[in-house]
Order: sequence, then C-alpha cells, then structure tokens
Amino acid sequence: MIYLDNAATTRPNEEAVAYAEQFLRESYFNPSALYGGGFAVHSELEKARAELLSRIGGGERELVFTSCGTEADGQAIFSCARRGNAVTTAGEHAAVYESFRELKNRGVEPRFAPLNRDGSVNTEKLLELVDGQTSLVSVMHVNNETGAVNDIDKIAEEVKKRTPSAIFHSDGVQAFGKIPYCLSENIDLYSVSAHKIGGIKGTGALIKKKQLALRPLVFGGGQERGLRSGTENVFGIVAFARAAAAWGDAAALLPHIRRLNSVFRENLSGVEILSPENGSPYILTLSAAGTRGEVLQRMLWERGIVVGTGSACSSKSRHSRVLAACGYPERMLDGVLRVSFSPDNTEEEARIGAEAITETVKEFRGKV
Amino acid sequence: MIYLDNAATTRPNEEAVAYAEQFLRESYFNPSALYGGGFAVHSELEKARAELLSRIGGGERELVFTSCGTEADGQAIFSCARRGNAVTTAGEHAAVYESFRELKNRGVEPRFAPLNRDGSVNTEKLLELVDGQTSLVSVMHVNNETGAVNDIDKIAEEVKKRTPSAIFHSDGVQAFGKIPYCLSENIDLYSVSAHKIGGIKGTGALIKKKQLALRPLVFGGGQERGLRSGTENVFGIVAFARAAAAWGDAAALLPHIRRLNSVFRENLSGVEILSPENGSPYILTLSAAGTRGEVLQRMLWERGIVVGTGSACSSKSRHSRVLAACGYPERMLDGVLRVSFSPDNTEEEARIGAEAITETVKEFRGKV
Repeated sequence: MIYLDNAATTRPNEEAVAYAEQFLRESYFNPSALYGGGFAVHSELEKARAELLSRIGGGERELVFTSCGTEADGQAIFSCARRGNAVTTAGEHAAVYESFRELKNRGVEPRFAPLNRDGSVNTEKLLELVDGQTSLVSVMHVNNETGAVNDIDKIAEEVKKRTPSAIFHSDGVQAFGKIPYCLSENIDLYSVSAHKIGGIKGTGALIKKKQLALRPLVFGGGQERGLRSGTENVFGIVAFARAAAAWGDAAALLPHIRRLNSVFRENLSGVEILSPENGSPYILTLSAAGTRGEVLQRMLWERGIVVGTGSACSSKSRHSRVLAACGYPERMLDGVLRVSFSPDNTEEEARIGAEAITETVKEFRGKV
Repeated sequence: MIYLDNAATTRPNEEAVAYAEQFLRESYFNPSALYGGGFAVHSELEKARAELLSRIGGGERELVFTSCGTEADGQAIFSCARRGNAVTTAGEHAAVYESFRELKNRGVEPRFAPLNRDGSVNTEKLLELVDGQTSLVSVMHVNNETGAVNDIDKIAEEVKKRTPSAIFHSDGVQAFGKIPYCLSENIDLYSVSAHKIGGIKGTGALIKKKQLALRPLVFGGGQERGLRSGTENVFGIVAFARAAAAWGDAAALLPHIRRLNSVFRENLSGVEILSPENGSPYILTLSAAGTRGEVLQRMLWERGIVVGTGSACSSKSRHSRVLAACGYPERMLDGVLRVSFSPDNTEEEARIGAEAITETVKEFRGKV
C-alpha cells in the first residue's frame, strides 16, 4: 500500500506510540491524583506541553490541550467572538467555518472573505470586512484542500492596524510541523492537531498568549488551568509530543517533501493541478475534469494507492465548498483528488502514485 | 502495589488495548475517508457504538461519542437548559456542577437540591425546585464520592409528572458497568466514561433518546451525525467497547465487589465510614477525624497502597464540596479517604489495604 492521504490523518509514529504505552500499562494514574503516581503523570503532561510549545516559539504563550484541532478552533472562536462581527475566510476547514456559521445564533455577524484561485484568502477583501465592531479574525495558515499558505503574520498585522482590539486566530492544523514557523506577536491564538504529524486521533491543542483570557467550552474539574476540564487524555498527549519530536524539524523536512511533490507533478498527465507551486508541498490537489473523484479514489484504493478527495472531514457533501469558492467549474469540482505526503513517503511511492492516477484517469475516461 | 483508586481511573484493560492497537498500527485511516480502509474503521466505530448501547438497554436510543464524561455532561446541559431554570443536586461531579454554575451567565437560573447525609439527593426538596419554568433536571446516578445511589428512574418519573417538558439527564459515569441498570423511559440523557471501566482516558459518550434534538458543543465536519465534530478518537472508542465487554456484566460482578467492600469494612478501625451500606460497593469513603486525608494518602502511597481523597477531578480545593454538603464537620472533612474497587482487586488486597489504612491513621495520630 502507498499511503498518500496524510492530510486526512497520518500513520501514528511507532516510537511515539511505544513510548506513550507506558501510560496505558504502568503509569495509568489520574494526573489529578495527589500521590506519587499522579504527580509523575502530571509532570509528563507538563513536559509534553513545553516540548510542543517550544516547537512553535513558546515565549509568552500557553498551550491548552484539547480533544482535537476542531475543538481548539471552536474554543478560540466561541471565546473571542463577541457581539458585532467576526471575520474569517471562505477557505476555512469546517471546524472554523461551521463555528462561524453558529455565531449567527449567538448574536455575532460572521463575515467570510473570498478566496483567490489557489485557495489563499483575498487579503484586500478580508481587510475590507474588518471594522471597529470586529472582535475576532480567523485565517487558516495552510489551506487543507489546496495547500495554499496564507501570510498570517502580515494579515494579522494589517488587522491589528485597523482594529487593535480584534483577536487574531489561525487554524494551524496543516501547518504545524510542516511549515517552518514561529508565532509572531500579532497571532493571539493558534490551533494544532496531533494526528496530522504522527500523533493519535483524539488530541489537539490551542496555543494562546498568556495574557489572553479564554473561556472554556467544557466545564468541570478545572484541568488545563480551568480552560479545559475532563481527565486528560494522557496517552494521546504524550504521544503528541513524542510524535512531534519524531516527525522532525519542519525546515529540514522541506527539501524531501518538495522533491516528492515535484516527482509527483512530473509523472502526472491528463489532469490539472489546482495546488499552487508556492504552497505547502505536503498537499497536491488535482482535478481530472469530467471524471468523479470518489470513483477514482476507490479505483486507486483497489490498486493499493490511497489518496483523498478534498477534506476527509467534510467528504459527505458532493463538492468541495472550498474549491467551489476558488472559482472552479462543476466539471472540475467533480474530478478532484487530494494527494498528501508525509516524511515517510519515498520518491518511488510518489512516482508510482502519480502514474497510477494518470492510468486510472485514462481508464475512467475510456469507459465513459 | 495495591491499586484502590479505581473511581479516579482504572488500569486500562490489556485485551482492550491490544485489540484497539490495530487502529494505531494498521487501520489508521480517517473514518471519514471514502475508501475501503476508511469504511472499515467507520464500521468498527459503529460496532463499538452498538456494543455500548446494548449494555444499557439500547431501544430508541443513540450514543454520541465525546472526548470524556465531562464533555458529555456539558453537552447535555448546554443543549437542554433554556431560559427559566434548571435543577440539579449539590452532590454532582464538577462536570455537572460547574456547567450549572455557568448557566447563570447564559440566562438560566441554576438550582441545587440539598443532599442527604449519605450523599444521595433529598428527593422531596429537589422536586420542590422543579416548576413550570424548569427546562432540565440533572441527577447523578451514583455519587462519585460516597457511592450513594440515586433512584433516577423514580426521580425522573416524579419530575415528568410535575413538568412533562423538562428534560432529564443523569451523569452515569460511576454507574455504567457497575450498577445493573437499563435506561428507563423517563431518562432522556445519560453520560458515561471509558476510563472508569478499563477503557482509555479521552473517551466518553452521551446516550440520548432518538427523538431528542441536541446541540453540538463542537462544530465542524459533521461527525457523530453532526452532534460532535472532529476526527473520531478511534483507538479510544474501540478500546471503550472492548473494555466494557471485558469488564463484564454488572450484576455478575456485584457479589465479588460486595465481598471486597465488606472485607475492607471488617478490617478497618479507628475511622468512620461515610459511604452508605446500600450504595455502590465500588466506592468506600471514610474519614479519620482530626487527620489530613492527603497526608494519609501519601503515607499509604509510600507503602504501596493507592487510594483517593474525594474526587480526583476536584482535588485541588481543600475540602470536598460534596461531603461538606452532606453536613460533615470540618474535622471530618479534613481526614477523608476514598477507596474504590475494580473487579481485578482481590479480597487479600482489600484486607491489606484496610489494615494499612488502620495502621497509617494510628501512625498519623501518634505523631500529632
């Protein structure tokens, strides 16, 4: 099997799983327990927190563990959007997009900025939506469908120039560990997820400026300094930190991933590549116009090639909302495949994967 | 080590962990992925859901997987409490108690019914709080600090007689798998947690009547029929169902747990037992008046005996809010220990544990 759906989820890193297993088998104590075993588990959680923070430029930041990136996005949004309006982009992952739609029920006007053709936000139009009544702006770092990278530092700076009181959040789920990046002064909140970089499904985190007051989504025993109650998912948290370390340095990984991406592009034919050249090389979205992506996907699965179609998280609707917002016509939206890499993929896998897509598209078209 | 803090968290069941590991190492696909691997994982989630539902009397019920019992409680409460008032008890776990306190900020008046001496709710007083403006009543099934069992079926029936439109929720975290029970007609919502019965921290569930409309706490890709977005914690969910099966039938386990409980009681001296005789035998709370529970707890830890002090989840405050609400004086609240069993404990462990407490209390008192 050649697994090229790493933006949906990665294979958990073996070393991270093996290390974290001690918290299932020996140190299974509740981290809130006030005895040696509980303290030891609690201290491992703090180590994991520091390890993860250090990877994104800790500084005056705190990290709140959540049950997933989606929860982290939701907590950021529902904490910080107050009355008036909140601004985001048409390209956001459903976690942000649907939370913004929910804001309407809570008396906050959601505003969606349009996209450029490559899936990045049209910054000028976004800034036009920001006004004195804007409490929150949320712009994803790397688009999960096209790989387009938004210059969040610059956008946040412009937002703060316009409305200094506006909180700036970014969904960094497809960027963390993949794009060399340290949080800049103007980024108040940043969401990350474990299972996109070799961790386990069920763990994410919201990184916040220390002085920023957040509200919980989940109330109770006061874990995570009162910001996220519920017994901590120790196994998932420890595995997250270990996986991030095992995943490696984002900058050091880039040449390999870029090579995978270009080998893939070179061996494709009969399809149009939608992902920008200057986007995250981890994501390569293409369209075989006139075909059906989900049919291609299953044909490829039968051949042992695993690829995605748009975002796995929203794959129940027929067309990608995001690619539609990029302005592609229906014929192209029908035939979308998303290829996404991990550092474990080899150039040979990229070549074979691209050839398989080329052949499968031909086969599909031959049959019609 | 003799582990007697099972109400805080249990040791994960080895068979459940071993079974679920395939979803870390082979079948790591995203359950939303529309290809064979994704379908297989998704179908395993559905099997886990059916397995768990069948243990509590499925019928016209649905089960929504959440990241913990606390989240399940919060979703029930914030979904169903609307204007007017919502009624709960002074004995609730912080997950319910703190969510009710938050209701005040959302325009709903929280009302807290007093407790009987054993930690059960004073039903008469609770019913006096229920009126035509009551949208939600939440009464825990088994009190996590004393083990007192509330007759939720009877209470729910009385609540519905008074206010048929009121939704009835119960936090079943310390009851599920431990108290033989099938959900009765009047229970609309019931929360459970995996790590109290051999599952993994990071997974819980909210069981609901099919026709009851719930609102999400976490919005996004529409997982869990739109009620709980975010990529599912496959490992935790599969382990939950397996652990519940491995844990065994609640009724069949009772004689063994009752025996552990009575061996423990027989071998204790110099302390007062606060747990009722007719409560859940899994929980045995005692007080050595004039001592300090957290000191005893650490002394016992040094001897290899692991016990709790009140609820691990709220162990950061000095006294147990719940035991204070039972009416115990400060001298007794200071010296509280909670012993909690699992089916894995042996009678010998119960005897040694009780003797160790007796001796440790003597030692403490000798020093003062």
